Amino acid sequence: MPSPIAPRFPVPALDQLPDDIRQRILAVQEKSGFVPNVFLTLAYRPDEFRAFFAYHDALMEKDGGLTKAEREMIVVATSAANQCHYCVIAHGAILRIRAKNPQIADQIAVNYRKADITARQRAMLDFAMKVSRAAETVSAQDIDELSRHGFSDDEIWDITAIAAFFALSNRLANVTAMRPNDEFYLMGRLPK
Amino acid sequence: MPSPIAPRFPVPALDQLPDDIRQRILAVQEKSGFVPNVFLTLAYRPDEFRAFFAYHDALMEKDGGLTKAEREMIVVATSAANQCHYCVIAHGAILRIRAKNPQIADQIAVNYRKADITARQRAMLDFAMKVSRAAETVSAQDIDELSRHGFSDDEIWDITAIAAFFALSNRLANVTAMRPNDEFYLMGRLPK
Amino acid sequence: MPSPIAPRFPVPALDQLPDDIRQRILAVQEKSGFVPNVFLTLAYRPDEFRAFFAYHDALMEKDGGLTKAEREMIVVATSAANQCHYCVIAHGAILRIRAKNPQIADQIAVNYRKADITARQRAMLDFAMKVSRAAETVSAQDIDELSRHGFSDDEIWDITAIAAFFALSNRLANVTAMRPNDEFYLMGRLPK
Amino acid sequence: MPSPIAPRFPVPALDQLPDDIRQRILAVQEKSGFVPNVFLTLAYRPDEFRAFFAYHDALMEKDGGLTKAEREMIVVATSAANQCHYCVIAHGAILRIRAKNPQIADQIAVNYRKADITARQRAMLDFAMKVSRAAETVSAQDIDELSRHGFSDDEIWDITAIAAFFALSNRLANVTAMRPNDEFYLMGRLPK
Amino acid sequence: MPSPIAPRFPVPALDQLPDDIRQRILAVQEKSGFVPNVFLTLAYRPDEFRAFFAYHDALMEKDGGLTKAEREMIVVATSAANQCHYCVIAHGAILRIRAKNPQIADQIAVNYRKADITARQRAMLDFAMKVSRAAETVSAQDIDELSRHGFSDDEIWDITAIAAFFALSNRLANVTAMRPNDEFYLMGRLPK
Amino acid sequence: MPSPIAPRFPVPALDQLPDDIRQRILAVQEKSGFVPNVFLTLAYRPDEFRAFFAYHDALMEKDGGLTKAEREMIVVATSAANQCHYCVIAHGAILRIRAKNPQIADQIAVNYRKADITARQRAMLDFAMKVSRAAETVSAQDIDELSRHGFSDDEIWDITAIAAFFALSNRLANVTAMRPNDEFYLMGRLPK
Repeated sequence: MPSPIAPRFPVPALDQLPDDIRQRILAVQEKSGFVPNVFLTLAYRPDEFRAFFAYHDALMEKDGGLTKAEREMIVVATSAANQCHYCVIAHGAILRIRAKNPQIADQIAVNYRKADITARQRAMLDFAMKVSRAAETVSAQDIDELSRHGFSDDEIWDITAIAAFFALSNRLANVTAMRPNDEFYLMGRLPK
Repeated sequence: MPSPIAPRFPVPALDQLPDDIRQRILAVQEKSGFVPNVFLTLAYRPDEFRAFFAYHDALMEKDGGLTKAEREMIVVATSAANQCHYCVIAHGAILRIRAKNPQIADQIAVNYRKADITARQRAMLDFAMKVSRAAETVSAQDIDELSRHGFSDDEIWDITAIAAFFALSNRLANVTAMRPNDEFYLMGRLPK
Repeated sequence: MPSPIAPRFPVPALDQLPDDIRQRILAVQEKSGFVPNVFLTLAYRPDEFRAFFAYHDALMEKDGGLTKAEREMIVVATSAANQCHYCVIAHGAILRIRAKNPQIADQIAVNYRKADITARQRAMLDFAMKVSRAAETVSAQDIDELSRHGFSDDEIWDITAIAAFFALSNRLANVTAMRPNDEFYLMGRLPK
Repeated sequence: MPSPIAPRFPVPALDQLPDDIRQRILAVQEKSGFVPNVFLTLAYRPDEFRAFFAYHDALMEKDGGLTKAEREMIVVATSAANQCHYCVIAHGAILRIRAKNPQIADQIAVNYRKADITARQRAMLDFAMKVSRAAETVSAQDIDELSRHGFSDDEIWDITAIAAFFALSNRLANVTAMRPNDEFYLMGRLPK
Repeated sequence: MPSPIAPRFPVPALDQLPDDIRQRILAVQEKSGFVPNVFLTLAYRPDEFRAFFAYHDALMEKDGGLTKAEREMIVVATSAANQCHYCVIAHGAILRIRAKNPQIADQIAVNYRKADITARQRAMLDFAMKVSRAAETVSAQDIDELSRHGFSDDEIWDITAIAAFFALSNRLANVTAMRPNDEFYLMGRLPK
Repeated sequence: MPSPIAPRFPVPALDQLPDDIRQRILAVQEKSGFVPNVFLTLAYRPDEFRAFFAYHDALMEKDGGLTKAEREMIVVATSAANQCHYCVIAHGAILRIRAKNPQIADQIAVNYRKADITARQRAMLDFAMKVSRAAETVSAQDIDELSRHGFSDDEIWDITAIAAFFALSNRLANVTAMRPNDEFYLMGRLPK
């Protein structure tokens, strides 16, 4: 018996979706070879779907500043703290690919303090975790500490916004009980 | 000395903003008589601004299902738990106006368990708080409990998505140290 | 239907109270124009009433050292952390009046780290919060830190004792479900 | 080198105290054979001293309802959770004497769920611990649960007020670093 | 530069170890093709090494009752809660092999409540997590709940002892900063 | 009615035990005058019994480095945090005897920060508590801090391993509801 994508809410059929959403989903399928379940689950609400992916792309597909791998490190570290099944498995795969490192995602998911990362990346994740778990205590000193590690204002905003966006994303995935696609588990683990 | 809007990141000048964003800001100013600081703070990043407010409006301006006052209750309860200065003050004002109740926002912000709300609204806030604080433990039983109170799938999604969206919003506001406008403090407190 | 003052325990009638307690209540009514519910709720136990208000007055009506507004800041910050409906609303009103500042109580209740207070007051509230939430970890270093901010032994005792007294008060109010009087919500919010 | 009574604040000399306070201290010394350090530490502030002990006696020396041993059980359980050196050692001694049980104080201090107490006493301590640690979540159901165990309104008030009063007391003792007198350690441990 | 096995304490050379320990290590190497780092790290203390592995084998290599895969599920769930890098990666590998399921370890490590396990296994992990995180609150009711799921006394002891043993193991691995061998990351992920 | 030793699991009769285990128990009885309940409770599982006591003795009976009293301090501090009835009472007795100090165990159990110990012992217990409660956050800085207090690598390992071993032991005792023998309560409290 195949497991449902997101067992707690209805998942719309592709041909019932608005054109732009169906096109986006087909484009992803074309590129990846499968449709990540987050697209089908969130399609239940077209307006929210559009806003969600516009926000996601603005933060995760951006050039310059943090590398794409570093952006995914933030996702994996904070999603693990939030125990988000979908996000850790799916973004763990993307992190392995973007960092070209088959171990980094598991290391960060279990305990980012023990991961093979630079001191600068460690400072980035310390800050991202504080944003994710106790943003009410973030102080000017925390931001100064990032500056000392060479992060620009723009990069500090990115760290903040990525941790904040996945605070949203993790909660949606946890409540809908969204499942990661089987494909994600092995992606990026094998040498090419 | 006037306090800065959001002391930790630059706030762009209105005439340097993209047209659509400037128009949106001017429209809000026209309607409210002032520009809520969240618009100016987030305008630092136009693409994220657009996604943020599209998401916000999809959840908070929606007709049917939860009332607009109930949507604001969720914002105030979860933002208080996250100690978000901007969100509690600004959305507290909106809640007072939408509920036509000058006390409800303070009651919910301090301890929603003691607020003058219905048993159904209490169940709604219990669930929203679990989404906000411990979404990883939300179970099918929690959702069944909402169904027993008469909430539809669509309404349960709304509660979830509003709590999740303000998990994002609270973190942005806390890290940027965004200040609520002075106007919010008194709005909805006086009889018309 | 008027809400009960404190729905979980009987509230005695004024004419059944011992003379000294009735006189104190009438004096408060004369001065304030209404009887704050804490007086009626605690009158259930005359001996405890007398001790409670004697303690309260010794800490809150004292001259010299901390200003009266600063004493109320401690009450509002710690009572918000304890989610005490009565104390945040009632003492928030008193704080607004004593500080002649209509915003300060809401700021401190939501997140005192973001409030418009001095560095010295911030140190005072950091310490008060530690007394309130984790007194078992208060160290000589914490007390030295207050001394560096210019607080005297007497003032440090006051901060401690106020935070400790409202640890008591908050618990009584939360268990009895004591309601703040309607009058408190708006007090001190309007310019005279 | 003898350890100071309360190393963080000055302890007044007996002959500098107001008459009523000195008399009370001498009476305690006469009765117990020594002066418990709480009397000397709090004498730093005569008005607070009077209110503190008036409150204490109203709750702990009361006849009827909860037994005196049960009142001390509440003190020991909540003071242990608050890691209050003075209160656990001193009231542990009083509990042993009042319960005529040399083991009960240690059992309750370490883990009251494993102590040799009745089911009714267990319900009493469960409630007292909730008052002490999370009073903001105490609900009508919690109070009903006590009623089912046969506790009257008066007894429920007592449990609440004792847990609340020692929330105050524990914080004062922890911040002042008040030491228990040597005499307390062994009191009530030996058969007469 | 190869990463050290356990960077915080010296790792003894194989030829300096007592015979029985060197034999055990060589036997593991023969069987697995490599020496798991836990053997080398703990060999720093021969007597503790012997006790550790005797305990481990008594719990994990036992026949009957819980399956070997179920025993590993307990290890992975509790080690993830304790953020133990070595234990999650190494025992995740063993779990995949014993359960013949390439996804189960990642699912349990991220959020065991969302894993593809039976209701009986869910009850087992709920109990194991309580033993691991809050054993002081385990009650007779918790044990009865396991009995209702068909667990025998012997199996309940096993669940308890495995969760308890890895409470020890996780702490040793976290403090020594023990690294999992590279081999573990991919074991059991590929179809044979 | 005598209380059971460990009410949740069967306790084997002495004459049904393997020879080596019975001999060990008889030797303890000979030496102490009674059989500590941990021996009878764990004898339910002979292999685990052997490993448990071999581990225990390797850590607690070791000569050199930490004194035996210091080893027991670690047990009492961490067992109190874990609310382990058996371990606090039984090892509190051993600590009193080994330290020749009738007050030290109660002081450390209630709040080790207030105990009459040296600065070096305080650093030892701070570290042990971090190992016990949050080992995932132990950093190289924590270990350096111990080195600054003069602890050798061997001693740091001992602190770690004792805190870790009693993380195991506390969980077994809490789940089995193991009772301390009556003898422990008074041991070491009276002058010889």
